[in-house]
Amino acid sequence: MNRNESAAHLDQVLANVDANLDASLQRLFDLIRIPSVSTDPAHAADCRRAADWLSKELTALGFDASVRPTERHPMVVGHDRSGDGPHVLFYGHYDVQPVDPLALWHSDPFEPKLVPQPDGDTHIVARGASDDKGQLLTFVEACRAWKAVTGSLPIQVSVLFEGEEEISSPSLAPFLEKTGAELKADVVLVCDTDMWDAETPAVTTMLRGVLKEEIEISCADRDLHSGIYGNAARNPLQLMSDILASLRTPDGGVAVEGFYDGVQELPEVVKAQWQRLPFDEKGFLGNIGLSLPAGEAGRSVLEQVWARPSCEIHGVIGGYNDEGFKTVIPAIARAKLSFRLVAGQDPEKIRAAFRTHVRARVPADCSVEFFDHGASAATVMPIDGAFLQKALSALTEEWQREAAVAGTGGSIPILSAFKDKLDMDSLLVGFARFDNRIHSPNEKYDLSSFRKGIRSWARILAAFAEEAH
Amino acid sequence: MNRNESAAHLDQVLANVDANLDASLQRLFDLIRIPSVSTDPAHAADCRRAADWLSKELTALGFDASVRPTERHPMVVGHDRSGDGPHVLFYGHYDVQPVDPLALWHSDPFEPKLVPQPDGDTHIVARGASDDKGQLLTFVEACRAWKAVTGSLPIQVSVLFEGEEEISSPSLAPFLEKTGAELKADVVLVCDTDMWDAETPAVTTMLRGVLKEEIEISCADRDLHSGIYGNAARNPLQLMSDILASLRTPDGGVAVEGFYDGVQELPEVVKAQWQRLPFDEKGFLGNIGLSLPAGEAGRSVLEQVWARPSCEIHGVIGGYNDEGFKTVIPAIARAKLSFRLVAGQDPEKIRAAFRTHVRARVPADCSVEFFDHGASAATVMPIDGAFLQKALSALTEEWQREAAVAGTGGSIPILSAFKDKLDMDSLLVGFARFDNRIHSPNEKYDLSSFRKGIRSWARILAAFAEEAH
Repeated sequence: MNRNESAAHLDQVLANVDANLDASLQRLFDLIRIPSVSTDPAHAADCRRAADWLSKELTALGFDASVRPTERHPMVVGHDRSGDGPHVLFYGHYDVQPVDPLALWHSDPFEPKLVPQPDGDTHIVARGASDDKGQLLTFVEACRAWKAVTGSLPIQVSVLFEGEEEISSPSLAPFLEKTGAELKADVVLVCDTDMWDAETPAVTTMLRGVLKEEIEISCADRDLHSGIYGNAARNPLQLMSDILASLRTPDGGVAVEGFYDGVQELPEVVKAQWQRLPFDEKGFLGNIGLSLPAGEAGRSVLEQVWARPSCEIHGVIGGYNDEGFKTVIPAIARAKLSFRLVAGQDPEKIRAAFRTHVRARVPADCSVEFFDHGASAATVMPIDGAFLQKALSALTEEWQREAAVAGTGGSIPILSAFKDKLDMDSLLVGFARFDNRIHSPNEKYDLSSFRKGIRSWARILAAFAEEAH
Repeated sequence: MNRNESAAHLDQVLANVDANLDASLQRLFDLIRIPSVSTDPAHAADCRRAADWLSKELTALGFDASVRPTERHPMVVGHDRSGDGPHVLFYGHYDVQPVDPLALWHSDPFEPKLVPQPDGDTHIVARGASDDKGQLLTFVEACRAWKAVTGSLPIQVSVLFEGEEEISSPSLAPFLEKTGAELKADVVLVCDTDMWDAETPAVTTMLRGVLKEEIEISCADRDLHSGIYGNAARNPLQLMSDILASLRTPDGGVAVEGFYDGVQELPEVVKAQWQRLPFDEKGFLGNIGLSLPAGEAGRSVLEQVWARPSCEIHGVIGGYNDEGFKTVIPAIARAKLSFRLVAGQDPEKIRAAFRTHVRARVPADCSVEFFDHGASAATVMPIDGAFLQKALSALTEEWQREAAVAGTGGSIPILSAFKDKLDMDSLLVGFARFDNRIHSPNEKYDLSSFRKGIRSWARILAAFAEEAH
């Protein structure tokens, strides 16, 4: 197919997407039903099954696809050179977050449920419906429609699906390094981000990094009776509380020494663009039952979640937490926490500063152990360039709403791996919404995200095939 | 039996104790094997079994004994009027603490194990071996020896065993009120306290009270992804940490407003007595792997644990605490904590002050719920009086070491119930040791505590039978 012919086929391709939407949805259901929870060793075989499933689907579409083992969960790699012109590498992840607390789910997390909404849309409710199974399939199904209509793809396409994104992608960088040229393309396409709002598509160009730590504090060499030892024996739950409290300043900042070194204020041009965006600060918090921003005083919510570094505690446990009461002073207390990082912050320097901060607060007769759960620096992408501009135009056409150039508070650690190992920039186009409850009970993906997501990728592939003007 | 005859039989009774020690031990094993964990509803039938077992043993000894139902776990009441003279009510509890963390036990908590020690003593290792099954049986076995030798008891004896001591004795006060005169005696004997050290017996005359609270803090109405909401959404684990940290002053005191109102400094005479006691501050902490006292600066360890009020956290839980990592901001966080109270502190005033302290720190868009797990005021007993002096003499004779008049950091909430409902003072004589690991894995009772504890009660009964000089 000639590169400029593709545009002519686009209407047929979009019609094909709509005509086959139910079959696409059934395939998403099949993938969701595989409980590929990467953090839980009990689900290792399920991760492998999800990889096999994707490899088979790609092969059926004409990709040269295979499952590639890693130290933990395998990669899926596929190539289709039926098109000519630019070469893109599409990235997605088939692993999902754990489902706990299970009691809060209204339906089986791994049995997708369609829940019609008052606005006419439909929620696809399941773990992974949005993050990232629904999102990655939008691209696969767009390729399927192109193949069905024209027998080929408008451009050269490779895909890479990993199964360790939710556990910080430990195998990705080594895999890219080892695989090398086979995966080198002109740009990486990533579908793991949000729309601006339910009607406005977005390309995300600014992502926070993340640094993950777990700490275990040990005091006495056994659990103690508080009546006998209370007051005199150091309580690790008190010590942990003191330390976690000490991480924040009274005005909502992070108190670790040197944490803000190198952090730049948002450029005025970006600040101005964000102020134009129709962001509903009250609605953003109101949607989750809150009303008072908890971050740094004097910063907008958007700045707090997109552009400012922070510290969040994800888990604390210690002592007796079952029914009833036990006047115990436990021997240990544990906590998991992370720091979201922005441009200018070196994750390993922050890790060292954090550990110094904690150690300084642990008395000499107690001890602390640190567990490194990974880290990635922040990413800021160039906002010029042909791929970005073409993607924005294609999105604007599909959604009939000007596509936003956005930031995000989340971290996609893989971006640094692509940049460092294969010198590729990434283009982040996603169709998730703020209220998708990813990582939470009752995760959902809107059927409109799925359908228009597929159509958006069909358009982007056509746009990339066009000669530059 | 004439009151002054009893003393003449004492040597035979003590010999009988020693001759039958193994049978006494087997009875203790039988009682320990009943896992009467009062806080856990799954063990309600076991509590009932323990009560039945005790009632049967008392009946076999000639007591008029029966199991009396309460709203939760039953009481055991028994009377033996074979003696004359003073009338004592012996109190003990058959319920035990939960065994978690089970993994830290070296043997089955409910299968008692005899572990010989280098010093020639033997540890009886099991949940409840010390607290309070081993302790309460010292009295029962002393009665058994008297019955075996003389066919009767030297004085009038009633016993009351409860099954709710580890859950703050909710049924005791109503039961005493309802049962009334049947349980009224000249003094209450309680065997639930420590010796001074392995060689020195003690009568405890000063006990801290305890106030138990559980709090649940709720922020967002669901679990959140920290990448999307982190920094802007209030994190209940951070809020909980801030609140728990705020309960303590930098110098180790309690920061709740009004907490120290009414707290008196230790009388000089008591302070002087405590300074004479052979208390090994370094050994007390060293024995549990610590070396730095954590309580109020400038106060001795003994003062911290016996005479000063405090606050201890017993459990904190929230968020993701399983293997791996999850960047979640949970919707809720929970904590259990208690305040140890001294004379002059009103538990309900402190509870109100604590709740005010917490509420003042919860932002308007979050909420806190409080759960009342009971409270008891501190107790200070008169240190003169014939029963105390006779008990001290009897203990001194048995242990060949001057018995100490001691304080304790623990709380025995039942003392106020006996005082308030039946106007009885209590005499606390116990044979546990500091290192018994009560409420912890591998709880133990020394065989010497058990043997000499039985012998001590045999002597105390004889002493009480003697006419006052």
